[in-house]
Amino acid sequence: MKRNGKSGTPPGEPVAGNGILSRRVFLESALATGAATAGASAASAQPLAIEPWMKIPGTGFEGYGQPSKFESKVVRLVPPLPNPATQGVGTARTPLHLLDGIITPSGLHFERSHSGVPNIDPDRHRVVIHGLVKRPLVFTLEALSRYPMESRIAFIECGGNSAPLNAPKPAPLGMAAIHGLLGCQEWTGVKLSTLLDEAGVEPSARWVIAEGADSAAMSRSIPLAKAMGDALVCLYQNGERVRPSNGYPVRLLLPGFEGNMNVKWLRRLKLTAAPAMTKDETSKYTILLKDEKSWQFVFPMEVKSVITRPAPGIVLKGPGFFEISGLAWSGNGRIKQVDVSADGGKSWAPAALTGPNLPMAPVRFRAAWQWNGAPAVLQSRATDDTGMVQPTRAQFAAERGLRGVYHYNAIASWAIDAKGEASNVYA
Amino acid sequence: MKRNGKSGTPPGEPVAGNGILSRRVFLESALATGAATAGASAASAQPLAIEPWMKIPGTGFEGYGQPSKFESKVVRLVPPLPNPATQGVGTARTPLHLLDGIITPSGLHFERSHSGVPNIDPDRHRVVIHGLVKRPLVFTLEALSRYPMESRIAFIECGGNSAPLNAPKPAPLGMAAIHGLLGCQEWTGVKLSTLLDEAGVEPSARWVIAEGADSAAMSRSIPLAKAMGDALVCLYQNGERVRPSNGYPVRLLLPGFEGNMNVKWLRRLKLTAAPAMTKDETSKYTILLKDEKSWQFVFPMEVKSVITRPAPGIVLKGPGFFEISGLAWSGNGRIKQVDVSADGGKSWAPAALTGPNLPMAPVRFRAAWQWNGAPAVLQSRATDDTGMVQPTRAQFAAERGLRGVYHYNAIASWAIDAKGEASNVYA
Repeated sequence: MKRNGKSGTPPGEPVAGNGILSRRVFLESALATGAATAGASAASAQPLAIEPWMKIPGTGFEGYGQPSKFESKVVRLVPPLPNPATQGVGTARTPLHLLDGIITPSGLHFERSHSGVPNIDPDRHRVVIHGLVKRPLVFTLEALSRYPMESRIAFIECGGNSAPLNAPKPAPLGMAAIHGLLGCQEWTGVKLSTLLDEAGVEPSARWVIAEGADSAAMSRSIPLAKAMGDALVCLYQNGERVRPSNGYPVRLLLPGFEGNMNVKWLRRLKLTAAPAMTKDETSKYTILLKDEKSWQFVFPMEVKSVITRPAPGIVLKGPGFFEISGLAWSGNGRIKQVDVSADGGKSWAPAALTGPNLPMAPVRFRAAWQWNGAPAVLQSRATDDTGMVQPTRAQFAAERGLRGVYHYNAIASWAIDAKGEASNVYA
Repeated sequence: MKRNGKSGTPPGEPVAGNGILSRRVFLESALATGAATAGASAASAQPLAIEPWMKIPGTGFEGYGQPSKFESKVVRLVPPLPNPATQGVGTARTPLHLLDGIITPSGLHFERSHSGVPNIDPDRHRVVIHGLVKRPLVFTLEALSRYPMESRIAFIECGGNSAPLNAPKPAPLGMAAIHGLLGCQEWTGVKLSTLLDEAGVEPSARWVIAEGADSAAMSRSIPLAKAMGDALVCLYQNGERVRPSNGYPVRLLLPGFEGNMNVKWLRRLKLTAAPAMTKDETSKYTILLKDEKSWQFVFPMEVKSVITRPAPGIVLKGPGFFEISGLAWSGNGRIKQVDVSADGGKSWAPAALTGPNLPMAPVRFRAAWQWNGAPAVLQSRATDDTGMVQPTRAQFAAERGLRGVYHYNAIASWAIDAKGEASNVYA
């Protein structure tokens, strides 16, 4: 593998195989000075068309706005034929290929539910802290609202995200179906440590069992160190109250930890000396290895990245300049570098990291690509600030095998064919 | 005026008048060790009530999620009786007192429209660059999507925000009515400089006239330096395509500049030697001074802050600990400090700045307050990293007078009465 991208290369010149250009295109606004031009048409600008919407007054004000009706296909991927008896068991997945930036629109944040979305009356809802504490406490929503709060931008990724890439042969699936169990919001809430301090944690306590108020009472065991660290009892996401499918009215946030530990509809926190061995940490959410063993209680989602554009469902209409755009994240810290390849990993060049780059949050990476119209294989490879590098699929398989469905974080590949269509491949 | 908050004060002790506590409450999770406790009830935690929503499976998946029906009152403040002939002329205002964090939910981002929201077909929409350029260019949405993009979190504030505070006597208005013309999103788009470089700006060009595709063809003149600086031609807000009321399918972002210069429904950018003196920079959006003069082309929104909680509409139910939470922002840079007062400005203590603190973005400030149940007057005062300090209302009036309706940025006051109710006052 060759890494390139030396600073002496002119911005319009390739720095890696198959047309990857220098990230200086982003840093220096140097597109027009290089070889690359994008999709503008030189045209007589006048007369400008006066479209029908300019000839009549527009619509009036709405209390709560919605997307344009022209964007009605930008929705989560939901099960096509839900079982009426278990309609809320499963996932709704985020169409990452139709989005940009790092914030997920709240209406499109992925959802993983174990027994549907409970319809919780916030005035009746309570959060209880009990078990190995000096004094058990019960909180109304109004009580929680009086405590000091914190806000942070953080990703939540389901432990089962990207699991379809464990299949022996690449399935003809799209972005949402493979990687759509990832979201990022600005979360606001009370530090769990503030509440635990008030309850008074007994010295013998080592774990906190968090339980949701869904009819599955979905429960997970959380190490006390995390609970006393950066855990938040969240009342708000992206500025407004937590959405029903994301835990209304209270959700636990454990930055960087696998998705379902961020318990939705939080009703109970029980301090214990040992983990509870709940259904969702024994029959599920353990990491199956190749040698009849599995890892249990391995919580942080490891360093990972995905290219969100181009991706299946987006057709490149003819050769020329394109931006390769994607997300990189790590449950262990901040992203340090993302490299991209257009030749299936034979050569690499660093992408630009643009916008906020926060710990336990995705960063948006961007690379400049001059597509020559021939088939290509696009890949991204993230490195975090602990030094962890996203493995190849072969490296991942050699270490863990491919029988498990949790914590898959190997480098993913999109093939681009001569028609400009993208598909899931192994490369 | 006395500033306090010295680091030797124990976290639970007051550091300014009327119960303002040290911000170390936020930094040290020291609430339980101090004098303050908030709203928890010590209670037997068992048996926990099994609420009805735990006894039945929850609802299934939705393609595009919405807030809880219990939050149906969390909406923008819209004109109660719109004139049918001009239904889309005016504002819809954000209920900042019901939100937290810095990101505004897209459905609640304020809206200022001059002729309603046009219903634009994105496949027919074009953006044209012409005037003093070497080659005029026309862009489809798909063409724009091929260019390198950037994402940034930025506020947009209407030039007329907080204008009701110019009234001689304090009006009995709430948060949205006074300060609700402020929003913050993650905006993603193409740098305007990239497109202008491709068009080739003539040496004689000094201004860019930006025009919207609403039926008002709302237009503003933008200095070329800003256009070639941090201006973005945005396709996405908070991850998804720009919302109709915020400019679908293309909005200009001029970080820090007054709201309506961030032209919505962008259709035309004309390079000129002089400003165009459009309706919205002559009859409106100039800053009227006290001596028959006005400022024109003063663009950045100046340093400002507002306390969003407590605020009118939120009742403090009995004395005790409360968090004072608010937003501070500056169109000239980053917020350096926010001070809070609970005694109408007689004494001040620094608030904690929590979460991301980005240039041209609001930062969330938080202060710990032990309310004794007596009347109090809450204020906040922001300082930005250029050294600008938010003026008192008297200082603002002495410099500019109070006849104008734009760029009001003086310190605002909420009175809290003995019932815990908040109201707009001058102090």
